[in-house]
Formats: sequence, structure tokens, C-alpha cells
Amino acid sequence: MTLTPAELTAIIREGVPASEGSGFCVERIEPDGVLCRLPFNPLQIRPGGTLSGPTMMTLADAAMYAAVMARLGRLEMAVTQSFNINFLSRPMPADLLARAGILKSGRRTVVLDVSIYTEGSLDVVAHATGTYSLPPAGRE
Amino acid sequence: MTLTPAELTAIIREGVPASEGSGFCVERIEPDGVLCRLPFNPLQIRPGGTLSGPTMMTLADAAMYAAVMARLGRLEMAVTQSFNINFLSRPMPADLLARAGILKSGRRTVVLDVSIYTEGSLDVVAHATGTYSLPPAGRE
Amino acid sequence: MTLTPAELTAIIREGVPASEGSGFCVERIEPDGVLCRLPFNPLQIRPGGTLSGPTMMTLADAAMYAAVMARLGRLEMAVTQSFNINFLSRPMPADLLARAGILKSGRRTVVLDVSIYTEGSLDVVAHATGTYSLPPAGRE
Amino acid sequence: MTLTPAELTAIIREGVPASEGSGFCVERIEPDGVLCRLPFNPLQIRPGGTLSGPTMMTLADAAMYAAVMARLGRLEMAVTQSFNINFLSRPMPADLLARAGILKSGRRTVVLDVSIYTEGSLDVVAHATGTYSLPPAGRE
Repeated sequence: MTLTPAELTAIIREGVPASEGSGFCVERIEPDGVLCRLPFNPLQIRPGGTLSGPTMMTLADAAMYAAVMARLGRLEMAVTQSFNINFLSRPMPADLLARAGILKSGRRTVVLDVSIYTEGSLDVVAHATGTYSLPPAGRE
Repeated sequence: MTLTPAELTAIIREGVPASEGSGFCVERIEPDGVLCRLPFNPLQIRPGGTLSGPTMMTLADAAMYAAVMARLGRLEMAVTQSFNINFLSRPMPADLLARAGILKSGRRTVVLDVSIYTEGSLDVVAHATGTYSLPPAGRE
Repeated sequence: MTLTPAELTAIIREGVPASEGSGFCVERIEPDGVLCRLPFNPLQIRPGGTLSGPTMMTLADAAMYAAVMARLGRLEMAVTQSFNINFLSRPMPADLLARAGILKSGRRTVVLDVSIYTEGSLDVVAHATGTYSLPPAGRE
Repeated sequence: MTLTPAELTAIIREGVPASEGSGFCVERIEPDGVLCRLPFNPLQIRPGGTLSGPTMMTLADAAMYAAVMARLGRLEMAVTQSFNINFLSRPMPADLLARAGILKSGRRTVVLDVSIYTEGSLDVVAHATGTYSLPPAGRE
């Protein structure tokens, strides 16, 4: 009953129409989280030739959502409650990878962090933390 | 030499291709900030029929960017350094309005907050704070 | 059954021993929040002669706690779930005032913001937001 | 010219009077950060018998300060610019350990994260991120 990366990708793409066009996908399920990819798209560019902040925010939030469902099952009604991000360096135009990990999984909320990399680099370009609020029953 | 709402809208749409398709615009310049609008688009929907978190993150970030340039002039190379958002209630499918205000304008950074409303409602659906880092010369 | 500023001050000083020595007090209850004071104490100084960051964090958190109980009644088991603060300018050695306001009061959580001033000045020296988690019954 | 744990502890205790009474100390310098300890003190208790939020905020901030100076040398004028913390579980009355790590060390700012543990446990009770602003010359 554990969801596969392909199932998680499909659930998110169906539920969040904007993610479908973006090419976002869950690449791998890891012990305490997931690894996701956002393919490069010229629409992500901002002045200076780097990727825009909201591109990374959107990826970080989707990676957290995937990590919540990888751990707890199909919980589409889980919603972001709070979100914090620090931008560390300006990513060049390339695919982004996001590793989301669960810091704490509680009855009401899941707290996570996310590190975003440029593919082929080890430098973290942004680091986010966030809280997902679970549906009242704990499950849908 | 102060930028008008139309000029700010044009600068942001030209510099950030994703904002052009979104219909984002600066509606009004206010004493310490700006009022911006994001038209409703079915792509913004997430499970539960509300607007997705990243839709509001993207609007909040763009509103801060507009407020920085409304105060300091054409500073396209200003970049988000850190960003924090709390989601307060689930917005119905409708246009969103964002009021960004400057909390502090320094030599290196500008700190702002943003309140996001659904058009026609007084309830704040999300509240964000963020820091924009200014280009080293203070001006481009 | 609404708590007075003196009652709120007493509840906090009894429950949080560190606050008693600090002289923290709730000065006034306002429509959507509270105004609190932290008397100056040389222990709050950090290098540069300004007040330390944790001094302001502690004041902001106590002001949020007071605002939650001013709104919902004696809810000592409410706890901080997440907290974010931006430091805007370096406060001189003087009493600090904190105005905490409720952004959203829900069944499970209360989201607040706090502006911290130096007494006698209108400049905000720090701005915080936070989420308090309410005890499961909503009331103790 | 690298500072030892004892030197870092002394610099912080001298500069921040409140830390002296707390017994805060830097225990170890690690590849990308530091490990610090805050001894248990009954003043740290809050209702429910757990340690107060500001106790953990203060520890996290001091650990970041120590990590900045462990990396860059004696930079007492470095100041917290922004700070975010998520509380994950309620720490029992015991010594707290904080591991602060550098996410990015730039010319103007250092971004860090901190995990706080109860001594003898592997559970993270709080996780913080923050940005320290460096003095304009990069060095004092």
C-alpha cells in the first residue's frame, strides 16, 4: 500500500494542474523523505538569468507534499500551514532537484525540510522548512 | 522618476516570464507599499477546490518585488533572500489581492510583509514576510 | 470572564519562572491583541551595546502567549508551534514594547504577529510572526 | 588562529551577559559547525513541565553565533538578521544540546540551521534556521 514514485507523481499532477505542465516528478522514495525533480523551463528565468524564487518555493512545497504522502499514504487534503525558505545562491538555468525529509510526523501536523540543488552540483541553492496540516481524521 | 503601477507591471512581466501568463498586475502604489492583483486561473486549484499554496507564495513574492521598486526605483536585480508565509484560511476560486508593505528599507536589504485577500472579502487568507537583498551598489 | 492585564501578567509570571525576574508585563488589552512591556536590564545587552536577539524573541513569544489568552481565556497549555522573526534595527538600551495581534484564531491554532518598539520611538525594531497550538479540547 | 570551544564560550559569555548565568557552552567544533550545551535550570520550565520556547530560541541563536565565529573568527559584531524555529516535541527537564551547521557562508551573510536535542535522546525537539549579518568589512 506504499505509494511508488510514479503514483505520487500522478496524484500530484492530477490534483495540482499547474504541476502537470511543469514536468515536476518524484524520482525516488528515501528512508525519511523523497527526491524530486523540476525540469528546466525558460519561464522560470528572472532578471540576472537565474531561476526565480517562486520556482524554488513551488518545488519545495511540492516535494514536502510528496514526502507527506510517501510516509502517510494518499492524503491529498493535507495542506501547507507554514513555509519558510532561505535562498543560498543563484541557480543557473538547469534542472533542479529537491530532497524533502520529515523532521517530525505528528497526529495533526508533519514538519519537513527541503534542500534544493542544481542537477550535477552539490551546492544547496535554497533550503526550506514547512509544516503540513493533516486532515482532522489523520487520514482522509 | 517614480514608477507608475503600469510601469512596475511591465517591468515585472518582462523580467519574469511566468508572471506574464499569470496576469499579475500592480494595481496601486500606496504610502508604504503596493496593492497587487492575481486573476483567478483554474491552474491555481489544488485538491479541496481551493487555491494552491505556491499560487499565494508567488503572488506574495511578486508583490514584495513591486514594493521594493516602487520605493527605490528600477532595481530588477534585487532578489529574495528569505521568505516566510503562514496560510490562514483556504481561498475560494477568485482573484487574489496582495498588499505589500515595507517594514524596513536599509542599505543592503528591504524587509516587507504581505497580506493576501480574496477579492470582495476582508479576511486575510495568507500573511507573508520576506527580505529582499539589494544589489551591492544600492542601485543598479 | 475576560482576563485583565494584571491577571494575564500574573498567569505568565507564575507559569514561566524566567518571565518573573524579567519584569515582563501585559500593559493593555486591545481589540485584536495586547500591548506588553519588557523593562530594560543590563543582562539584555550584546556586543555593540544593543539589546540581544533572544531578548526580543522572548518578549515576542510572551506577547503572543498573552494575546492568545486575552482572546480565548486561561489556556496555559497553548504552546508555540512555529516562530519567525526579522530584526529591523538595533534597539538602544531602553524598555521594549511589543504589540501582538491575532491574524487568525482557529480551532487548533492561533496565528499572530508582533511588532517590537523601543519606548518613546515609533520605529519597529523587530517584527515576528508565530503559530500557537491549542490544547486538543480547544480549551483546557 | 582558529578559536577553540573554550575561547568561543568565553567570548560569548563575556559579550552576552545573560549567557553567562545560563551555563551555555560550546562543547565541540565540527567540520561545518558546532555542538553546544545548555544546562538544565528550573527557570526554563513552562506550564506542562516542559522547557519553554524562548529557552530553545536562545540556545539556537547562541549556537549559530558560535558557528559563525568558529568559521570566520572573532566576529562579535555579527548579528541575527532573521530567525525561524519549529518546535517538534516537548523537551523534558534536562540539558539541551544544539548542533548548528553552516548552510552558506557569504560575503554579507551566513545562513545556518540548528537541531536541538535532549541529552541522551536522538529525537530533535526543535529545528531552527537563521541568517547572521556580517559587519560591513566582512571582518571587524
